[in-house]
Amino acid sequence: MKKKVITLGEVMMRLSTVGHERFLQADQFNIVYGGAEANVAVSLAQWGLDTYHVTAFPDHDLSRAAIQYLRQVGVKTDYVYQSEGRLGLYFLENGAMQRASKIIYDRFDSAFAKFDASQVDWDSVFDGADWFHWTGITPALSQSAADMTLAALKVASSKGLMISGDINYRRNLWQYGKGPLEVMPELIRYTSIIVAGLADFENCMDIQADDYEQACIQAKKDFPQIKYITTTERDSISASENGLSGLLWNGQVLLSSKKYQMTHIVDRVGGGDAYMAGLIYGLLHLSDQDALEFGVAASVLKHSILGDANLVSLEEVKSLVRGEHVGKLLR
Amino acid sequence: MKKKVITLGEVMMRLSTVGHERFLQADQFNIVYGGAEANVAVSLAQWGLDTYHVTAFPDHDLSRAAIQYLRQVGVKTDYVYQSEGRLGLYFLENGAMQRASKIIYDRFDSAFAKFDASQVDWDSVFDGADWFHWTGITPALSQSAADMTLAALKVASSKGLMISGDINYRRNLWQYGKGPLEVMPELIRYTSIIVAGLADFENCMDIQADDYEQACIQAKKDFPQIKYITTTERDSISASENGLSGLLWNGQVLLSSKKYQMTHIVDRVGGGDAYMAGLIYGLLHLSDQDALEFGVAASVLKHSILGDANLVSLEEVKSLVRGEHVGKLLR
Amino acid sequence: MKKKVITLGEVMMRLSTVGHERFLQADQFNIVYGGAEANVAVSLAQWGLDTYHVTAFPDHDLSRAAIQYLRQVGVKTDYVYQSEGRLGLYFLENGAMQRASKIIYDRFDSAFAKFDASQVDWDSVFDGADWFHWTGITPALSQSAADMTLAALKVASSKGLMISGDINYRRNLWQYGKGPLEVMPELIRYTSIIVAGLADFENCMDIQADDYEQACIQAKKDFPQIKYITTTERDSISASENGLSGLLWNGQVLLSSKKYQMTHIVDRVGGGDAYMAGLIYGLLHLSDQDALEFGVAASVLKHSILGDANLVSLEEVKSLVRGEHVGKLLR
Amino acid sequence: MKKKVITLGEVMMRLSTVGHERFLQADQFNIVYGGAEANVAVSLAQWGLDTYHVTAFPDHDLSRAAIQYLRQVGVKTDYVYQSEGRLGLYFLENGAMQRASKIIYDRFDSAFAKFDASQVDWDSVFDGADWFHWTGITPALSQSAADMTLAALKVASSKGLMISGDINYRRNLWQYGKGPLEVMPELIRYTSIIVAGLADFENCMDIQADDYEQACIQAKKDFPQIKYITTTERDSISASENGLSGLLWNGQVLLSSKKYQMTHIVDRVGGGDAYMAGLIYGLLHLSDQDALEFGVAASVLKHSILGDANLVSLEEVKSLVRGEHVGKLLR
Amino acid sequence: MKKKVITLGEVMMRLSTVGHERFLQADQFNIVYGGAEANVAVSLAQWGLDTYHVTAFPDHDLSRAAIQYLRQVGVKTDYVYQSEGRLGLYFLENGAMQRASKIIYDRFDSAFAKFDASQVDWDSVFDGADWFHWTGITPALSQSAADMTLAALKVASSKGLMISGDINYRRNLWQYGKGPLEVMPELIRYTSIIVAGLADFENCMDIQADDYEQACIQAKKDFPQIKYITTTERDSISASENGLSGLLWNGQVLLSSKKYQMTHIVDRVGGGDAYMAGLIYGLLHLSDQDALEFGVAASVLKHSILGDANLVSLEEVKSLVRGEHVGKLLR
Amino acid sequence: MKKKVITLGEVMMRLSTVGHERFLQADQFNIVYGGAEANVAVSLAQWGLDTYHVTAFPDHDLSRAAIQYLRQVGVKTDYVYQSEGRLGLYFLENGAMQRASKIIYDRFDSAFAKFDASQVDWDSVFDGADWFHWTGITPALSQSAADMTLAALKVASSKGLMISGDINYRRNLWQYGKGPLEVMPELIRYTSIIVAGLADFENCMDIQADDYEQACIQAKKDFPQIKYITTTERDSISASENGLSGLLWNGQVLLSSKKYQMTHIVDRVGGGDAYMAGLIYGLLHLSDQDALEFGVAASVLKHSILGDANLVSLEEVKSLVRGEHVGKLLR
Repeated sequence: MKKKVITLGEVMMRLSTVGHERFLQADQFNIVYGGAEANVAVSLAQWGLDTYHVTAFPDHDLSRAAIQYLRQVGVKTDYVYQSEGRLGLYFLENGAMQRASKIIYDRFDSAFAKFDASQVDWDSVFDGADWFHWTGITPALSQSAADMTLAALKVASSKGLMISGDINYRRNLWQYGKGPLEVMPELIRYTSIIVAGLADFENCMDIQADDYEQACIQAKKDFPQIKYITTTERDSISASENGLSGLLWNGQVLLSSKKYQMTHIVDRVGGGDAYMAGLIYGLLHLSDQDALEFGVAASVLKHSILGDANLVSLEEVKSLVRGEHVGKLLR
Repeated sequence: MKKKVITLGEVMMRLSTVGHERFLQADQFNIVYGGAEANVAVSLAQWGLDTYHVTAFPDHDLSRAAIQYLRQVGVKTDYVYQSEGRLGLYFLENGAMQRASKIIYDRFDSAFAKFDASQVDWDSVFDGADWFHWTGITPALSQSAADMTLAALKVASSKGLMISGDINYRRNLWQYGKGPLEVMPELIRYTSIIVAGLADFENCMDIQADDYEQACIQAKKDFPQIKYITTTERDSISASENGLSGLLWNGQVLLSSKKYQMTHIVDRVGGGDAYMAGLIYGLLHLSDQDALEFGVAASVLKHSILGDANLVSLEEVKSLVRGEHVGKLLR
Repeated sequence: MKKKVITLGEVMMRLSTVGHERFLQADQFNIVYGGAEANVAVSLAQWGLDTYHVTAFPDHDLSRAAIQYLRQVGVKTDYVYQSEGRLGLYFLENGAMQRASKIIYDRFDSAFAKFDASQVDWDSVFDGADWFHWTGITPALSQSAADMTLAALKVASSKGLMISGDINYRRNLWQYGKGPLEVMPELIRYTSIIVAGLADFENCMDIQADDYEQACIQAKKDFPQIKYITTTERDSISASENGLSGLLWNGQVLLSSKKYQMTHIVDRVGGGDAYMAGLIYGLLHLSDQDALEFGVAASVLKHSILGDANLVSLEEVKSLVRGEHVGKLLR
Repeated sequence: MKKKVITLGEVMMRLSTVGHERFLQADQFNIVYGGAEANVAVSLAQWGLDTYHVTAFPDHDLSRAAIQYLRQVGVKTDYVYQSEGRLGLYFLENGAMQRASKIIYDRFDSAFAKFDASQVDWDSVFDGADWFHWTGITPALSQSAADMTLAALKVASSKGLMISGDINYRRNLWQYGKGPLEVMPELIRYTSIIVAGLADFENCMDIQADDYEQACIQAKKDFPQIKYITTTERDSISASENGLSGLLWNGQVLLSSKKYQMTHIVDRVGGGDAYMAGLIYGLLHLSDQDALEFGVAASVLKHSILGDANLVSLEEVKSLVRGEHVGKLLR
Repeated sequence: MKKKVITLGEVMMRLSTVGHERFLQADQFNIVYGGAEANVAVSLAQWGLDTYHVTAFPDHDLSRAAIQYLRQVGVKTDYVYQSEGRLGLYFLENGAMQRASKIIYDRFDSAFAKFDASQVDWDSVFDGADWFHWTGITPALSQSAADMTLAALKVASSKGLMISGDINYRRNLWQYGKGPLEVMPELIRYTSIIVAGLADFENCMDIQADDYEQACIQAKKDFPQIKYITTTERDSISASENGLSGLLWNGQVLLSSKKYQMTHIVDRVGGGDAYMAGLIYGLLHLSDQDALEFGVAASVLKHSILGDANLVSLEEVKSLVRGEHVGKLLR
Repeated sequence: MKKKVITLGEVMMRLSTVGHERFLQADQFNIVYGGAEANVAVSLAQWGLDTYHVTAFPDHDLSRAAIQYLRQVGVKTDYVYQSEGRLGLYFLENGAMQRASKIIYDRFDSAFAKFDASQVDWDSVFDGADWFHWTGITPALSQSAADMTLAALKVASSKGLMISGDINYRRNLWQYGKGPLEVMPELIRYTSIIVAGLADFENCMDIQADDYEQACIQAKKDFPQIKYITTTERDSISASENGLSGLLWNGQVLLSSKKYQMTHIVDRVGGGDAYMAGLIYGLLHLSDQDALEFGVAASVLKHSILGDANLVSLEEVKSLVRGEHVGKLLR
């Protein structure tokens, strides 16, 4: 039977310059829609899972375009709500060579951040679901978004779903009067799969460590419900060339993946979300090591695709894991 | 000697769909920068006047792109300030045939709306200037923007500048707790050239009239400093076909212009601003009737140009007034 | 409660030249997906009806793109099947002025034409449905497509659905060995709303008449289950300018609609399908005359939109019927 | 047997702004290649005539692109020579509504203007040919171009070809020290079909007349070899709307064509050349009146096509003459 | 004297996604025309050879565009025929990084596959020609195409032309009831230059070998008229990075070329055809080793050019062979 | 206080093919404006210096577009003059992989080359300025341009400005009757910072040397006012991959910079100008070694930006020098 996955988070309009143009040169933007959690949902929908994204939008045609996009890529929109506020935006300037990529966020006061989730019937949302995925971006947006995350987590947990959380600490969010240490630990307490780098451990779990495995062991002590902790490691040689690999701590050992050399990167935004989706797919269907490899291969393929979303098939990820068809011409 | 003109107002990024695409179809936006008052400045700069636009932006590359744009089209940016807040945006879907054009504004909490103008030395801004132009959009944005408008008007008036105000009542603005009748009359009191339609008279001056000339006469009674009242009249046959003419009441008679039939409209946004700029140019250099004709002809040409700004030369407007070269191929 | 509508037909990839380029000049095509019946479904989905399109595709990524498109615009794809064969295509050269538009079809041997519908459980498809719409294109494609149409009609009829059929005779189809008079009458016999022009009456119902009302009366005699017969009347002044109005015979009188003058046409393909959808919506919710007016107004708006589909809202059609906002700038 | 036609003239690269952009807004140009005489050749090649264009280019890849273009559209390039100098250019800003179109020429010192035609074996060029077409642009470019025209005319005339000349007086040419009256009469003396408006009569034949027929009669007196004189009459309502008709004086009567109303003009450049080509085709194959109608209809269709060249088929022109398929959708 | 080369094969419309877009993202296709044999002809035409391509098209404007393309790039179209059937198509999704490129063919029932070549006068086609090139794609399409290939080979052989055949086995063709081993050996028997990889040897010549040289020796035994056997070797590091070198067995030794590292690949389609063309040019004008190096260098340059065709000059290939100007800026 | 810099030179329109298209494929050009000296001015304006560019243009809208561009990117246009002549052009075909980039110049008889500078008041131009930059391109254009350069140098030198000259010998210029050795030495005599490679030493200073340091020592002997000599060293692995480093001889030692590996080059045109601007900035504000590193880092970043101009901020160059943010995603 198809696995059912619920994701929760803001969907923004992304406005990116064309090719390698700078903001200062742009007279046109390409538009796609995305968000860390919705990107995960899109990946999973590509791979045949039954995915629902919970979010809120203002009432206008650009929101309708965003909803259309979710439907188009196979994400169910039964739990998309209408709310007062703006459509969150972000502007992307795609770097090249030694020149870094740049994002200008314009997401404050969004309909999602202002959304009053009391109208959501979480019991119904999570009914029959296998997995719930959230990220640290949502509780960083507003008190109501943090409250909504907690409410969702309580119900999801009580219904026995697998719960993953991408800590994803961002200094430029958290503007509503609370800091991550006041909010995140309680949310993490309901979460069994954690995506976290060393800075996330420090900022959101108050765990200082120089060594990733030590950080994981400490996290498990502080949050005993945790089953997996994971992160990707990225070498930024240039905006066009990165190395990528992944680490997965499963409570016993720290597994590490094959390392991929990625040159001629098309679009690195959403690479982490593609990894997360791959890991969720993997943990639902594969062994730990294979789940990790699946996640990293999925992320590598994402870097070849314009936009936030990883529009690749299950078979394409599996082929890359097996090292087949790499860069060939398939007729 | 070149006339010096000061304009004050927000500059937004305009994101418009390509060709006749709907918002629901768009995967690309064309970007230009504009605002009712800046559009007037751009027109006047094209015609050789010394124009300065007073505004404020947040500190990022898209604002720098907006400032670059103003410089590019010849507007002086000496009085462009930096302020906390967003860059105001608006989204435009260009209509066609019987289908209307649509604008979605996303301008709340902009750096301009939040700008504290106490740092502006208005004496220096208006030094040697001949004309100051403002619109009813600015006081509709925020208390601080209304205060800034008043402060500017007081200094401009004390220095003897000609002052024009485009009433431009918009119901979806005015969200900061005051209504237009609490704010506009005081601002109008410093203004000698008023752009107003019958709805503006009612909403911003509390003047009810069915007849334009009667409204003007009443306005003059209530605001005796007024010298000119003007408006354009537009027949909307379709998004692609309009009729356009202008009315100018000069305290004595109601002058009316030639009526132009405009088919194959390229972009009607900024048509009113082009008229206003033409009228300012005209009142500075021509007779009343010629000023009116110049303004309407300028506005007609604007409808043939993509973007907010009227990138036409003095000679092109004069040719149209004379009925020369209309639609020809000039080698 | 939402009305549920079922449509049946082929979905093709449409490849159209950019702007007004000729085939001989093209080095790029714009791609959309469409088909006479799916276009009706898309319209109805925009207006909030529960619409399902029954069709078949080959198994490749371009078919998936077509399915994605249906989902994006709100059409349910539960009854989209996979079949051997090609994806049907058509190439469109958009005319201008006196130069006609041109279509080159490349749809033979499509997966839809070769689809063996015995796997379709029509009882389940039509369960709870209110309306079934088919066109004369499907039975013109192949024997199996004609058989499928008949099978669907029998079940739909037995379950008491309203059934509409757009006769849509096309001489360049009907290549599989049968002529329309061998096939169409039996299908029409299950159909209560017929779209037919005088040529359709002749070619598909063997009814010769010079007068539309006489043709309707004769059709009713031959096919007594018919409740409505309708057609649009189009004046082709040029590729850019048409007049459009509609006729609806309701068994008693021949109603005629307001006539619209359409200049600056953006894309006329799908104009008839937009009319059909409008009429279905109208007959489900409005009086006969209002249904006719709704259909014609919907069709007019379609001509302002690039692509096969009429991406307009219910409110936009209603506004045009009321003569409101025509060609305005809505802020 | 196919008629063989020789044309002589410069081929320029045309750089036009996209859509209705102004030069001041352009960051992209569309490129096509064209020239008054080559445009005639292209039309005739579309209609199946054996057409050779005589010209000269500098030795670089952009010239090769121009030659490729001629071959692509069916013009024979056997008599294309290489010469020192530049590739002539012209920049086009496409007008809209009341705003005129603008051309900036950049053609001085071109390889064609500097071409030493002594290497051309005119006997071979004209061998077996039926028609030679030249325009007044060539002798206006340089002494060598004027000399070449005369040399060509002498041979063409001696071999009994039909010879047409489009007088096409342009004030901004003729910079090499001679005026048109010093050069043109001798060339006209070899020419039996003349395209000339009243200004051309005055500037190039020293004939003053207010009435077209009187001018023709006088021209015939001065240049008795003339058989036909022709011109088009254009009403410029706007850049998007023109009226077009033609006049043909055949030595006996002044024939006039049907008048076409052209709205939604796509590109008017080359409209006169399309007429000329149509007339040549017509005079080779049709009666005088039919030739005139064919020429005007060909010119009308040209206005619907982007670029200098009239990429329409013989059948399309004939259909328009017959009033068939006007603005229809041909499936 | 110019060498004259005849090629025979289908020309398809290629529809490729823009940049690195996936099929699932595409709303636009770039169009070029190409085919394995026509691509060879285009290369040779660029290098000044007299090249004729024999093929057949249906009768519509897209076919005319294909013919125009051949003429544009210098290929003679004297032996292009009209036939019933479709225009063959293929869709290309350009890969990036580890993501493979994908082709969806849509070429069944094409006019070329259905073409009855009995109307071709092969004696006249091959008159005065030096070389005939065919590929294994043609006999894979249909019985009539296989028959045509044999008929052409017989005449070409009898007239003493050099004959090259690119075996090019493709499993997804060969759908008309015969397998390659029933058809290819007889065709190969007329061919003196064979392009074949180990899989081609096995599938089309029934030669099993692990070693390329051994396969060649065996092929020579079975097909004693063979003079040269050749192949390219490609390392697919990613869709953006390949290594390329070539092997040429001349009956005595197996020559191998310089190996090129190709990064930043623009378009790899047609790379093999560019090699073949280079080898033909080389064997006509150079020593064996130089011919091989010319072929490989030509193929490398092809990878930098969008489209099927290798639009490079003779001098550019020679420079690369000499290692000059590699990646420089030539002013 | 802001440093004031004066640059002198021609500004051309650059017409470049889109992406990696060849000239033979192009039907569109991207347009930017640039020139070796103006490019330096643009860089310095980005970094906050007060920069004025001295140049001349013909009187038309494309020149106005060029002037607008200079204003847009912050260069002051107070000393832009109008002159008879053309707008200089150059066409750019961007290479890829092993295929070289190509420039076709079309700049003869430009308004700048024909400009009579006697109207320039150099005293006023250089008033308060810190630096004057010229290149060897200007004196190569025409006698009047060489005279203007000398006149400017005399005044700049007398006012004590730092003077830099980029020797930039180009064989295809120098067509007006003088050679570089007749003109350049006198100009170099006023110049204290020289950009020269070994070929420049030989062609413009008559210095033969195999070793860069020896050339510098000899140059200092011949031109004792020289303080710095500099050059960049470029490894051209392919059009997409270069190595870049710089050398700076400060009269005592030959400093060398870090070497950067540049892959995925976007646009290498203007790389040398970006270096020059970086060096000027550096010598005005930093130590010799830091100035060199700043110049090379600035040049590296230029290669990631489309167009002639280096639109990067001071902070971006400094970050690259420090090795920070290289190729990251900055949020």
